[in-house]
Amino acid sequence: MKKIVLTGAGGRLGSYLREPLTRLAGTLVSSDIAEDIGMLYPGESYIRADIADYDAVHTLLDGADMVVHFGAIVDEVPFEEMLGPNFLGAYNVWEAAFRQGLKRVVYASSIHAVGMYPRNEFIGIDVPHRPDTFYGLAKCFAEDLGRMYWEKRQLESVCLRILSCAQVTSPRALGTWLSYDDLIQLVTRAIDTPTTGFSIVYGVSDNDRSPVDNSAASYLGYRPRDNAERFAERILAEAPPADTDDLAQMRHGGPFASTPLGQSGLAGMNIVDDRKKT
Amino acid sequence: MKKIVLTGAGGRLGSYLREPLTRLAGTLVSSDIAEDIGMLYPGESYIRADIADYDAVHTLLDGADMVVHFGAIVDEVPFEEMLGPNFLGAYNVWEAAFRQGLKRVVYASSIHAVGMYPRNEFIGIDVPHRPDTFYGLAKCFAEDLGRMYWEKRQLESVCLRILSCAQVTSPRALGTWLSYDDLIQLVTRAIDTPTTGFSIVYGVSDNDRSPVDNSAASYLGYRPRDNAERFAERILAEAPPADTDDLAQMRHGGPFASTPLGQSGLAGMNIVDDRKKT
Amino acid sequence: MKKIVLTGAGGRLGSYLREPLTRLAGTLVSSDIAEDIGMLYPGESYIRADIADYDAVHTLLDGADMVVHFGAIVDEVPFEEMLGPNFLGAYNVWEAAFRQGLKRVVYASSIHAVGMYPRNEFIGIDVPHRPDTFYGLAKCFAEDLGRMYWEKRQLESVCLRILSCAQVTSPRALGTWLSYDDLIQLVTRAIDTPTTGFSIVYGVSDNDRSPVDNSAASYLGYRPRDNAERFAERILAEAPPADTDDLAQMRHGGPFASTPLGQSGLAGMNIVDDRKKT
Amino acid sequence: MKKIVLTGAGGRLGSYLREPLTRLAGTLVSSDIAEDIGMLYPGESYIRADIADYDAVHTLLDGADMVVHFGAIVDEVPFEEMLGPNFLGAYNVWEAAFRQGLKRVVYASSIHAVGMYPRNEFIGIDVPHRPDTFYGLAKCFAEDLGRMYWEKRQLESVCLRILSCAQVTSPRALGTWLSYDDLIQLVTRAIDTPTTGFSIVYGVSDNDRSPVDNSAASYLGYRPRDNAERFAERILAEAPPADTDDLAQMRHGGPFASTPLGQSGLAGMNIVDDRKKT
Amino acid sequence: MKKIVLTGAGGRLGSYLREPLTRLAGTLVSSDIAEDIGMLYPGESYIRADIADYDAVHTLLDGADMVVHFGAIVDEVPFEEMLGPNFLGAYNVWEAAFRQGLKRVVYASSIHAVGMYPRNEFIGIDVPHRPDTFYGLAKCFAEDLGRMYWEKRQLESVCLRILSCAQVTSPRALGTWLSYDDLIQLVTRAIDTPTTGFSIVYGVSDNDRSPVDNSAASYLGYRPRDNAERFAERILAEAPPADTDDLAQMRHGGPFASTPLGQSGLAGMNIVDDRKKT
Amino acid sequence: MKKIVLTGAGGRLGSYLREPLTRLAGTLVSSDIAEDIGMLYPGESYIRADIADYDAVHTLLDGADMVVHFGAIVDEVPFEEMLGPNFLGAYNVWEAAFRQGLKRVVYASSIHAVGMYPRNEFIGIDVPHRPDTFYGLAKCFAEDLGRMYWEKRQLESVCLRILSCAQVTSPRALGTWLSYDDLIQLVTRAIDTPTTGFSIVYGVSDNDRSPVDNSAASYLGYRPRDNAERFAERILAEAPPADTDDLAQMRHGGPFASTPLGQSGLAGMNIVDDRKKT
Repeated sequence: MKKIVLTGAGGRLGSYLREPLTRLAGTLVSSDIAEDIGMLYPGESYIRADIADYDAVHTLLDGADMVVHFGAIVDEVPFEEMLGPNFLGAYNVWEAAFRQGLKRVVYASSIHAVGMYPRNEFIGIDVPHRPDTFYGLAKCFAEDLGRMYWEKRQLESVCLRILSCAQVTSPRALGTWLSYDDLIQLVTRAIDTPTTGFSIVYGVSDNDRSPVDNSAASYLGYRPRDNAERFAERILAEAPPADTDDLAQMRHGGPFASTPLGQSGLAGMNIVDDRKKT
Repeated sequence: MKKIVLTGAGGRLGSYLREPLTRLAGTLVSSDIAEDIGMLYPGESYIRADIADYDAVHTLLDGADMVVHFGAIVDEVPFEEMLGPNFLGAYNVWEAAFRQGLKRVVYASSIHAVGMYPRNEFIGIDVPHRPDTFYGLAKCFAEDLGRMYWEKRQLESVCLRILSCAQVTSPRALGTWLSYDDLIQLVTRAIDTPTTGFSIVYGVSDNDRSPVDNSAASYLGYRPRDNAERFAERILAEAPPADTDDLAQMRHGGPFASTPLGQSGLAGMNIVDDRKKT
Repeated sequence: MKKIVLTGAGGRLGSYLREPLTRLAGTLVSSDIAEDIGMLYPGESYIRADIADYDAVHTLLDGADMVVHFGAIVDEVPFEEMLGPNFLGAYNVWEAAFRQGLKRVVYASSIHAVGMYPRNEFIGIDVPHRPDTFYGLAKCFAEDLGRMYWEKRQLESVCLRILSCAQVTSPRALGTWLSYDDLIQLVTRAIDTPTTGFSIVYGVSDNDRSPVDNSAASYLGYRPRDNAERFAERILAEAPPADTDDLAQMRHGGPFASTPLGQSGLAGMNIVDDRKKT
Repeated sequence: MKKIVLTGAGGRLGSYLREPLTRLAGTLVSSDIAEDIGMLYPGESYIRADIADYDAVHTLLDGADMVVHFGAIVDEVPFEEMLGPNFLGAYNVWEAAFRQGLKRVVYASSIHAVGMYPRNEFIGIDVPHRPDTFYGLAKCFAEDLGRMYWEKRQLESVCLRILSCAQVTSPRALGTWLSYDDLIQLVTRAIDTPTTGFSIVYGVSDNDRSPVDNSAASYLGYRPRDNAERFAERILAEAPPADTDDLAQMRHGGPFASTPLGQSGLAGMNIVDDRKKT
Repeated sequence: MKKIVLTGAGGRLGSYLREPLTRLAGTLVSSDIAEDIGMLYPGESYIRADIADYDAVHTLLDGADMVVHFGAIVDEVPFEEMLGPNFLGAYNVWEAAFRQGLKRVVYASSIHAVGMYPRNEFIGIDVPHRPDTFYGLAKCFAEDLGRMYWEKRQLESVCLRILSCAQVTSPRALGTWLSYDDLIQLVTRAIDTPTTGFSIVYGVSDNDRSPVDNSAASYLGYRPRDNAERFAERILAEAPPADTDDLAQMRHGGPFASTPLGQSGLAGMNIVDDRKKT
Repeated sequence: MKKIVLTGAGGRLGSYLREPLTRLAGTLVSSDIAEDIGMLYPGESYIRADIADYDAVHTLLDGADMVVHFGAIVDEVPFEEMLGPNFLGAYNVWEAAFRQGLKRVVYASSIHAVGMYPRNEFIGIDVPHRPDTFYGLAKCFAEDLGRMYWEKRQLESVCLRILSCAQVTSPRALGTWLSYDDLIQLVTRAIDTPTTGFSIVYGVSDNDRSPVDNSAASYLGYRPRDNAERFAERILAEAPPADTDDLAQMRHGGPFASTPLGQSGLAGMNIVDDRKKT
């Protein structure tokens, strides 16, 4: 592969992906809304771009084979604030990818697209959407868009429904944790699988308590290696009281399920806002 | 019921609903983007509003019990043109309905939210979205939004996935036809059912060749009476050659499935653009 | 058929079945815990029996081909009170039917065996149990027992999950109503179908708003004729306010779903206690 | 349509189809292994052909738009006897239809392709095969072949899984009966539906006791009108004793399910051997 | 956790659980119908109680957080003998747990609740009940009761459907074996999972030949470590002749499936009667 | 076990099975259409037989307990050429096994029985057939036949749907590879499982990218040990360009899905014709 573009490269997850992605393509073009993202890796270049600006995205994707789209507000915020980066941003990426002739979009979707399912339903990759926030609703939008671009325009997508890629700090995360190594494997499989069509896969490690079912995405070859169970004893000992009335404990979305729509601050809980970071 | 608001009242389907809706509430407030919609029925008043303008929608819904939301561009157009009336319009209606304390949104969704399914798959109301156009994508967005407002905010919705409510002019329409009488029954059930939570139901008559499965929405009590089969002999005799390579003949979405994204003109085929009509 | 036994013959539903059952067998033996059940029909005899007493049931079933088992407390009561008539009563009937060589048990089961399912889930006859009361739990027990007697002992059963066979007095009953004529047809089919194995079928009329799915029991040939929709206008006009927080409005079991376990008085709502009536 | 070919035209079902088929095409070419099939209808011609002979079939289909393939041994016989007419016959018809450029094969399949399912399983059109005889195995073979010719060669097929198209003489037939009028409607829909791809549909009337589920074939528009229930009283009165150990009473295939493989004589029960008739 | 109560502590499985349970709570109260259960572990106390006696159970659960309910007759016996310990015992435990404000019941359910399923059906945790014995019927009763107490009274339950926790002595046990270590892990997960709602999970080791599907209970984090395959060579060499007519070899329930209802002695085969042991 | 017969013993896969099979029975009778198959293993004898000849097969199976049936043309060829060895061969084996009183047929079925399913559908063992070639159609025929012989004649079968048991030379094979060791384990489990009824299981190693679901065959105890992922880096580096229009890349059947029916030469791609080899 000649060229991969990474959006949200300055964000927390994006930062972890930069180095591995340089090894998957001749050129990695990293992008973010920030002025710069620090030292670049060999084979990496940086282009500042606002993903809410179509022309900027169009230029960014010029000549690329694939785009790894992680740029977004990674927090719940009011719909009006979400509209540009998360909704239009997704549209811009797929539309520019189509017009520029890319082969595939690899997208950081989220468990929050289906976050209102009860946690003790073992949900597969083909369940209907049940978003828990405007943040999750934007993921639903992008997934549906991605499916349509495949069916109407033969542009492939792999949507990575990440559960929680952050330090394990709660009982929920014993099930939802995605280690950085497994994240990298997941993104690698999403890129190196020769043909994917439109695919969805949960981004979660091989946790004993994993609450989602990736079996139908088996052909992608994602086999996580890490397991949050090694944190279980400490986490459970320090856990707040169990409460079956708390949606945060009873739904897949965790705190996103229990927080009022549009109320920010969730990023501080277990997901960090990539866009504001730099 | 004291007050119902109807958006898209100047459109083709909206026009048919005005009179019946006056009989379901003390007051019907009809609304459209047009200057006026002609003579009003007893109990009906008219408020001009652009549904893409939140404040206008907020004012419009003041004091209402339910809103019947039919206002939208009813054609495929480029995403940028769809954004205001169909995406933001839907958000505005649900958000204002929530803030104004309405009980329910009755929404004109569409088969195009799932239009890429093969026509010989008998799809139920719970299949994942497979939109065929930006038009259909906006329906997916609104349905997911509606489900979320129910699950997070206890605002009910009934999403009517209308197949084709227009004259029967093609073999496809022998299966997809929704008569005006059945449309009125459908909207009436969506309003008079005491509690609905979040519901989806296909808007289709009792056609012999109906390709969708409403059984799971049975509790709503929608029992269509009309049957397009009486048009079959004439329509089949005049039909263009069958062509299994034509997506318009092989997918639920019909011509929307075979038309490039963003290309307008589908309204003239079997759906008329309500918003441009007056 | 030579002889049918009817338990609960003095109850409300039992009373309706006596005359039709005399036409399906040479002899009908009616039974109840009451001293007598009034005038007998030609071909009918009466034997007083307490179904909680095995020996009485054993004697009662002597020489019968089938037993139509409607005897039970038809109200929610504390578990200890339910134990005799509803749990042991069911065991006694199946055990005596087996020992006496009967061919089949036709059993008045109830929607309350699955009453905690959300009303807008269109439940089929094969969903796992979700009882809403001790009353419903006894139905679960009897259904599981009946399946086991079929699989281990080749004694057939047809379990009629009656929704609500009483006057239509609530919006819920627009969906759940079982007319007396349809009840009679249902019991007749349960008897005249030559082989049934173990079968479950919902007892509900052909209501527009029926919330359950009998399709998998189609081979029994039950085709209801009545439709509660003719009561809809009046019932909906007089209905109490819709309330989505009220389990009685949101679950299949209606008031049974919202009433505390063991609290009696539900019989007065839409089911009458047959055993106390005479 | 210009030309339709009917095989098995001299058989019992074929005989009923000849006159209606002349009204669906300019020319009907009837064929059978017999010397002649009696007086011809206007627009009908007759060509004698052995369907086990590829060249004869190839010639027969020359210039046709569709073939209605009913020619076969309609009885259970040893595999070696079945091989020519039922297995090779099917291959010959599809292969010649492909080479001659026909649009579609309408095929007389049978419930016996799935005859070992328990009768109280409400089987849909997409269940895996469970043949009950070599006769049924040949139907499985032809259905799989037909699906492959659609997927690999774009030749359409409609497989009519006929239950029992004959006089109602047993309790089983109260559920399985297909009236001649409904047979004609079914074949008509299989022909006049513009595009079908590969389709399966059960051939059964609107019997109260119908044991199969055609809902997924709804788009074909087959709506049977007849109902065997009018024969129920007489048939049930005369029925032999119910016997749950008798597979003929407990499986969809009826007597085919209980008869040893390869043992002929079933034709006399409720299906007549068309090929030997003339 | 402050206090856990264990019933059936004198039984075979209960005995294995005593020591591990002392490490999960400040206090373990062990109970059985026996006079004593021998030496106590640090942190353990013993209270003799008959679980068929409500008052005794009520007293026993005073102040507890959870109850691990293993007390029962662990053999098939006539229904009348099963009624007290297995049916009333279960009711008493849940009812007392509710009244005493416990958080959760961990229950020794059994494969025999679904033992009549064919062994080559890979059954999940949500299949409808198909009990094979009165013993299994009591498990069905308790599971349905537990679900109801969760849905009506917010008392959690985890039902452990143990397959066979005993020495591997038959080919069936190569699939059904639950090692003691895995039993302990299973019970530990059932206790330390912060919120469980109502849950069912099969109690089986990581056997190559495991015939049941625990995937839907994945969120509980039960990951068995042992595998009966190491016994395979010896067991298969010594196995009695395979016999497809023997229900004990063809159904999940094994010998329970082939033994007449109510006939005791199964305990000696691979489950030992805990209550009679001391 | 006293005696096992292996057909296709001279073929590529058959050759690998000979030695392991001698360890599973007192006598192994190997058979092929070739004059000889070289040196025999201790306990092995050789009988030349044409499986298309019933009498030869009948003689071959005399006194055997099981037959491992791998003899067939292992390539796509015109139907007429396939008929003898693959269709009649299968019939002959099952029929002779029945008449000779064997206990079980272990059959080399193939992914090509379901090869037209999209590769990103995770297909289980119970999906309806979708053959991709005449070769696959013969596998469908044999599987349906095998199920019928079990249901009508109590002759067991285990159908091994082998994906690709050959050197890993393509990206597809990273998912479909079956190592020789895993093949041997698979055949061993198919033989040593005491009762199997009619079973289907995919023959595939424990590849990260495995595209099929064997979970429902779990009770057979097949646990593959090998994983083609170790070849991934090299294979992906050398892979031809990904092409979503190429059915060979998008369907389970690989090149069989994209090759015209009846066109030979596929054997050279990743399956070798066993019958012509010696």
